[in-house]
Amino acid sequence: MRSEQRPRGEPVLARAARILQAFTPEEPELSVSEVGRRAGLHVATASRLIAAMVGLGLLARTPAGRVRIGVRLWELAQRASPTLGLREAAMPFLEDLHAVIGHHVQLGVLDAGEVLFVERLSARDAVVNVTRIAGRLPVHASSTGLVLLAWAPRELQERVITGPLSAYTPATVTSPARLRALLAGIRRQGHVVCDGHIHADATGVAVPVRSGPDPAAPVVAGLSVIVPSDGRASSLVPALQAAARGIARRVGGSSSLVQ
Amino acid sequence: MRSEQRPRGEPVLARAARILQAFTPEEPELSVSEVGRRAGLHVATASRLIAAMVGLGLLARTPAGRVRIGVRLWELAQRASPTLGLREAAMPFLEDLHAVIGHHVQLGVLDAGEVLFVERLSARDAVVNVTRIAGRLPVHASSTGLVLLAWAPRELQERVITGPLSAYTPATVTSPARLRALLAGIRRQGHVVCDGHIHADATGVAVPVRSGPDPAAPVVAGLSVIVPSDGRASSLVPALQAAARGIARRVGGSSSLVQ
Repeated sequence: MRSEQRPRGEPVLARAARILQAFTPEEPELSVSEVGRRAGLHVATASRLIAAMVGLGLLARTPAGRVRIGVRLWELAQRASPTLGLREAAMPFLEDLHAVIGHHVQLGVLDAGEVLFVERLSARDAVVNVTRIAGRLPVHASSTGLVLLAWAPRELQERVITGPLSAYTPATVTSPARLRALLAGIRRQGHVVCDGHIHADATGVAVPVRSGPDPAAPVVAGLSVIVPSDGRASSLVPALQAAARGIARRVGGSSSLVQ
Repeated sequence: MRSEQRPRGEPVLARAARILQAFTPEEPELSVSEVGRRAGLHVATASRLIAAMVGLGLLARTPAGRVRIGVRLWELAQRASPTLGLREAAMPFLEDLHAVIGHHVQLGVLDAGEVLFVERLSARDAVVNVTRIAGRLPVHASSTGLVLLAWAPRELQERVITGPLSAYTPATVTSPARLRALLAGIRRQGHVVCDGHIHADATGVAVPVRSGPDPAAPVVAGLSVIVPSDGRASSLVPALQAAARGIARRVGGSSSLVQ
């Protein structure tokens, strides 16, 4: 059975995964032919796979006949999500920070060398912020990413430092030497303040979140606030560090939550 | 190509979907053989499919060799989630309600005849609450479910009213006649107060959330708070109704967000 099924099953799953990747926050609904084009599939193949995925609740059809991610897939991915435990441990602290600081409070984890944001609370009148829940940013550019990178395995650090360092603004750190020094500074100080690294008007302040109260416990997330660039962002570090300790205490009480 | 692939692809996807269903909030990590047992698959088949799904990021292996939902799957399901728009529209209002009322504030949608909770904010010292994000409850038992059912299509109402009505407590509505009258009352009053329907110590208060500011716009979600059963829950109805109107206004500004 094994020799028969390997060549069957895996390509179908890979195609289904490419279909899921076709949908984005900007375009959560697509026509069948758009899905096919983005997934690199013939429209007949896409159409057949989409029909099967709709039947299983992985995708859904809109009243207009377009296709989107199914509620059932969201539920399956969310209810046993590797990030749900972290998110639930962090939420009361994110809410407290958000009530006090306003603007944006967010939590990110390292995934495939990037920051993946797993939670965000935003005020209606907050400063500009490019992140969103389940969005990604390069680690060298975002404050959340920099704290994650500062405690990441050495080989990832070197790969980022010696790789291409894209600039969002003139303030984005794009020099390998400056990035190396910045990471050393973050490890020494326990936080980072990024004034205008992604948008001139916004400053990110981030601290590491550990997997338990032990100060040597692994860093599992980055906690950050995005506030206006008015020179007062540094004053928020103690509030962030206190929240990060609270989250670590709750995370430490659960089993393997993340990554 | 079609005649060849239909019998191949669909069973693999169906098996993959059964594998995803094996994971629950209580048991987000399973051994390969546990996954196989729950998915009704031979361990060799499960093992091979799991390996393919791990390769695609749909599943991940823990350091202990167990299996869980992959961060990549969570990201794909979440970033274009059918519930994300609703959740983002609702979040500021959920936060405001939560800051004022405390305990639990939650938002649910109707899916496959049940309430699926898409968001929840909880205080650390809140009253007991059985729901969780991406969790489900029967519509007849929960306050959120009752408001959704009150504006649901007639055939779903009849199916629920004439189907088995499980009891959580002696206060759960399990009589078809009483449920019918309760739904009529909810449509008339625009809210429901469920004192001890799921747990003797907790009262749920729920209101419908419409898809836009028009009072005849379709109901797309139920907004509820779970508070202690101290007889004061009814006083929260105006705050909930105001929040539901605010959410409807924001939902009305976006394209098809839900269901």
